[in-house]
Amino acid sequence: MDETGTTPEHPMWLPEAVFRGLRDRTIAVVGDDPLLGTVRREADAAGMTEVPPSAEAELTIMPVADLATHARRIDAAAVGDLGTEGYAIAREGGRTVIAYAGAAGALYGWFHVVRAGLGDADTAGGAASDAPTVERHVPRHSLRMLDHWDNVSEHPVMGQVERGYAGGSIFYEDGRVREDLSRVERYARLLASIGVNRVAINNVNVGRREARLLTDDLGEVSRIAACFRPWGIRVHLAVSFASPITLAGLPTADPVDEAVQQWWADAATRVYAAIEDFGGFLVKADSEGQPGPFAYGRDHADGANMLAAALAPHGGIVHWRAFVYNHRQDWRDRSTDRARAAYDHFVPLDGRFADNVILQVKYGPLDFQVREPVSPVIPGLRETAVALELQITQEYTGQQRHAVYLAPQWREILEFAPFGDSGPTISDLSRGGIAAVANVGDDPFWTGHPLAQANLYAYGRLAWDPSLDADAILDEWAALTFGDDTTARGGIHRLLSDSWRTYESYTAPLGVGFMVNPGDHYGPSVEGYEYSPWGTYHFADRDGIGVDRTVATGTGYAGQYPEPWRSVYESLDSVPDELLLFFHHVPYSHRLRSGATVVQHVYDTHFDGVERVRAQVALWDSLDGRIDTAVHRRVTERLAEQLRSATDWRDQINTYFFRASGIADERGRRIY
Amino acid sequence: MDETGTTPEHPMWLPEAVFRGLRDRTIAVVGDDPLLGTVRREADAAGMTEVPPSAEAELTIMPVADLATHARRIDAAAVGDLGTEGYAIAREGGRTVIAYAGAAGALYGWFHVVRAGLGDADTAGGAASDAPTVERHVPRHSLRMLDHWDNVSEHPVMGQVERGYAGGSIFYEDGRVREDLSRVERYARLLASIGVNRVAINNVNVGRREARLLTDDLGEVSRIAACFRPWGIRVHLAVSFASPITLAGLPTADPVDEAVQQWWADAATRVYAAIEDFGGFLVKADSEGQPGPFAYGRDHADGANMLAAALAPHGGIVHWRAFVYNHRQDWRDRSTDRARAAYDHFVPLDGRFADNVILQVKYGPLDFQVREPVSPVIPGLRETAVALELQITQEYTGQQRHAVYLAPQWREILEFAPFGDSGPTISDLSRGGIAAVANVGDDPFWTGHPLAQANLYAYGRLAWDPSLDADAILDEWAALTFGDDTTARGGIHRLLSDSWRTYESYTAPLGVGFMVNPGDHYGPSVEGYEYSPWGTYHFADRDGIGVDRTVATGTGYAGQYPEPWRSVYESLDSVPDELLLFFHHVPYSHRLRSGATVVQHVYDTHFDGVERVRAQVALWDSLDGRIDTAVHRRVTERLAEQLRSATDWRDQINTYFFRASGIADERGRRIY
Repeated sequence: MDETGTTPEHPMWLPEAVFRGLRDRTIAVVGDDPLLGTVRREADAAGMTEVPPSAEAELTIMPVADLATHARRIDAAAVGDLGTEGYAIAREGGRTVIAYAGAAGALYGWFHVVRAGLGDADTAGGAASDAPTVERHVPRHSLRMLDHWDNVSEHPVMGQVERGYAGGSIFYEDGRVREDLSRVERYARLLASIGVNRVAINNVNVGRREARLLTDDLGEVSRIAACFRPWGIRVHLAVSFASPITLAGLPTADPVDEAVQQWWADAATRVYAAIEDFGGFLVKADSEGQPGPFAYGRDHADGANMLAAALAPHGGIVHWRAFVYNHRQDWRDRSTDRARAAYDHFVPLDGRFADNVILQVKYGPLDFQVREPVSPVIPGLRETAVALELQITQEYTGQQRHAVYLAPQWREILEFAPFGDSGPTISDLSRGGIAAVANVGDDPFWTGHPLAQANLYAYGRLAWDPSLDADAILDEWAALTFGDDTTARGGIHRLLSDSWRTYESYTAPLGVGFMVNPGDHYGPSVEGYEYSPWGTYHFADRDGIGVDRTVATGTGYAGQYPEPWRSVYESLDSVPDELLLFFHHVPYSHRLRSGATVVQHVYDTHFDGVERVRAQVALWDSLDGRIDTAVHRRVTERLAEQLRSATDWRDQINTYFFRASGIADERGRRIY
Repeated sequence: MDETGTTPEHPMWLPEAVFRGLRDRTIAVVGDDPLLGTVRREADAAGMTEVPPSAEAELTIMPVADLATHARRIDAAAVGDLGTEGYAIAREGGRTVIAYAGAAGALYGWFHVVRAGLGDADTAGGAASDAPTVERHVPRHSLRMLDHWDNVSEHPVMGQVERGYAGGSIFYEDGRVREDLSRVERYARLLASIGVNRVAINNVNVGRREARLLTDDLGEVSRIAACFRPWGIRVHLAVSFASPITLAGLPTADPVDEAVQQWWADAATRVYAAIEDFGGFLVKADSEGQPGPFAYGRDHADGANMLAAALAPHGGIVHWRAFVYNHRQDWRDRSTDRARAAYDHFVPLDGRFADNVILQVKYGPLDFQVREPVSPVIPGLRETAVALELQITQEYTGQQRHAVYLAPQWREILEFAPFGDSGPTISDLSRGGIAAVANVGDDPFWTGHPLAQANLYAYGRLAWDPSLDADAILDEWAALTFGDDTTARGGIHRLLSDSWRTYESYTAPLGVGFMVNPGDHYGPSVEGYEYSPWGTYHFADRDGIGVDRTVATGTGYAGQYPEPWRSVYESLDSVPDELLLFFHHVPYSHRLRSGATVVQHVYDTHFDGVERVRAQVALWDSLDGRIDTAVHRRVTERLAEQLRSATDWRDQINTYFFRASGIADERGRRIY
């Protein structure tokens, strides 16, 4: 019932109201980089008046080097090293000064002001005699990337956007790059406002049509890059490892073949001739049918380094995905464990990757499940730049039909300390930055489910600063998007804040994963993957369930972790309840550390989860009249589907566990 | 590895060798109906010499009425009533006479001679003084139909031929009727040679494009009809009940609306203006998303009769399918039983259907499973013409990748006596004839699996004469197709004769049905439909499996049968083993009448089934050199896949039952 035809494009978190406080205020901008031009146009559009640099300007944006001249009371030494993207912000006597080192810092500083407001010049005047407070904002990760799984031509099964739940691609239409890219420009602005600085514009599963983006379509790619460039964002392409064969007719794509190397070098030269600030290549190789170096008896370092050599003269990067496993596994083979695959493939190659190779690692060892342990590949690679890969598009988390705010999950991942509390976190170890699969499309709300905008927003903010609190980001987003109504904002907070755990509660329990319908990955199918070639099994029988991944008696996956986690996961006494079935096969009567049995936990969480969704529905209904009508209607529709689907999950999971175990619910609730 | 591009079109059961015995023999044909022209062209192509009617002609084809003139020694009274399609064949002194009443009888008589040969004039001469033996051949069913589930435009999921396993459509290509219909002409000849006389040329799921066959494309349909006409075959169209809305823009398709009735009457008039011998409409209404009379509060008699009224002035027929059920069932609802649906919908309407309505009923209450009880709708309808619907295309029986000869199943169905041994059979009760879903495509072997040609052949032969022995048909087909090598023919006989039961042995056991992968219906997925909306469940838990369809404690489906079957199916003491789980939910330890427990039966049949396939592979290998190379290679490929798939079935089914029951195989074989 979505009225996609008539609903106007939603402004996401930058509605006009956000800029109201800037109207008729004065701004001074020092510098002439093109990105400063962007800032000036933004300020002008916001109704600000540009003035020459002076103490009178209510907002001054200037290079750090000019602080001494124009803003004497702020000490450049206190500002410190801002890198190319950082900024410092000082509030002084009702005046705000943003200092930048690189021009991108000016842009990010500008959006800081947009988010936080300029303050009131009159009331702030009283503090004129105090030394100004200087806040430094430098991104924790220098590469903050979005991966679009967009196909140029519509894939017969996957559609135009693989795992896209928000309509068609904003880049492509009718098998080519869109004529009108104005939406891409608005998208770039939204991304800049949350700090994203890299975008891969096509699917990592590179079809024959998409492969040609690298060659025939460079002019078109250049048009897309031009939309992103004013916003400090560089464009990357996903490329097919077989391109020398499929595009150029070479007899091989062997990475040690000189003609192949030359072809890639020439391809890179052509790309940079067309797009000077091109970001680099993103590669899914030897994975789920994509071509790769294995066909030639080469390893992934050989493959990645060959591409890296082609890009290096131009400053380009190879993002090489670690998502490599045997997707034609035989379920009868209990010795193979897909969870082990990335580590087994890549850790032995540590130290062999070129400097401009980044190994991009999914957060968990399987595939973006609602709950997985953090991938041991990230701590396992000591000498390789690693990028953490998250998934904003809700492939396994409700497909933007369920309201699921993912930032709490991402925070857990980013803060996970693989070597123990005193060691580095996953964020610290992701020296190659963060990448995430995008969740937007040509839907009027951008993300299908309007509340899924929060995930895109939170991703950008966390990629910049992983220490931000998930709830604080949520509130920041809600304030920008929904305005001043505290009832509305509070309601949205309550609806979303714990929604990830709500989703977990009514879907696959205790870290067991993959109880979704094969193919579309939506809705329950407890045995859907149990006899499949995909390597995702739970081994439920009449006695128990779970995968023994211990070193002692299982696949040994737990041994891929450093201490303390190796031991924590190895033992039933210490494994966290929420990962129990990921690491251990236990009887249904096994008692969790929470005190409940496994089967009773399943019943309890599934009954409870549906009630939580029901409460969300009621909460949202109560906000009718406080929220934009089109948004409210769309979310109402989606919540109805979420409740239906959650009920389906509850009943199928509960029935499955009851049929298997024969153990009744202690509380006598209805199991079908 | 099929080499569809280079392999020449296979002649099926009419290779040149079949006609060798006719070369240089003499034929006299009396009559001038166009179908006699077909016979003359056939005879000429076979190298026969046409001679004037006289006692000298080795083969004489003439009207019954002329027997007295031209073949005095055959008594017209002994020939009896041949109807419009029957023929009598007399061998007399080395001469063969075929007598017909309607011209179609001449055509069928001709193909009888093609199949059986003309005999040797020299050796037969000795019997000249005996009175000739007269065999009467009159079809048991006057309507012997093939339903093609071909789409004009390729369906995004179902492809060009729904449930087609032999390539694209022979009728359509690139979204329109093929320019070159010569293959359709050859197909028509093949069908005539086995007695098929009706063909519905488009899918019962009628898409928007296909609906226009009835209107815009009549000229094209007429071209197809012209291909079939010389072979005594009339063309039917599947139509969409919503056509008045979708094609004509009327506000309704309500069957009592006069404008709707008029639209259909006009449509029928236009069809017959273009195609004088048009057969009629085939309708899937209110089923799996197809439109129907329910939308207007009308019943299926209202809907069918409205179309029947439009066709009646032209002598057309409505085939109205009884395959109506709730395909959005809730698995939690244990009171609804899809098996009951057709009976519950249609038996109350008995007596209300117009004379030119035929209710087309699938052989079982569910959907073409390898084993189902025969539909109780057929005995349930006393005053309605019923057509039995079979499925030649192997949707649920191995999809023409498994060698499965279906005639034994069809024979069981046709011979089933719903009122007990002394009562009429299903064949007797199918007064509206027999229809079957076709299995051909533009594959060079017509049917993908060359051995699947046997099913098409057997269908035609059984539709003509349901009393034919399945093995005899198989041998007849093998002799025509593979020629004189008795080793080859014997091998094919052994491979196919019991192949239906072999397939049953390694797939869903004991009549439980639907353990296939959802969607494509190929390969095992024991729980694939267990929580689906399709109404096909087995209710397995840790204790037992099966569907209680008894009157006493179940859904009451068994009560839809007349005695004696109602009681036979109702009781565990009398239900046939092969249908046990269709009618009863029993513990895994339940002892079959065979003496084995359910679970041990599952293990035994599944281990045995794979061994039988392995023996088939060896048998086929031994025929290398005795069979056409391309055929041998294709069958070898398919058998390899069958063995792989059968092994998959064995292991998944056995593992599932072992995990659920915890009961080990008595013989200690490997269960994963």
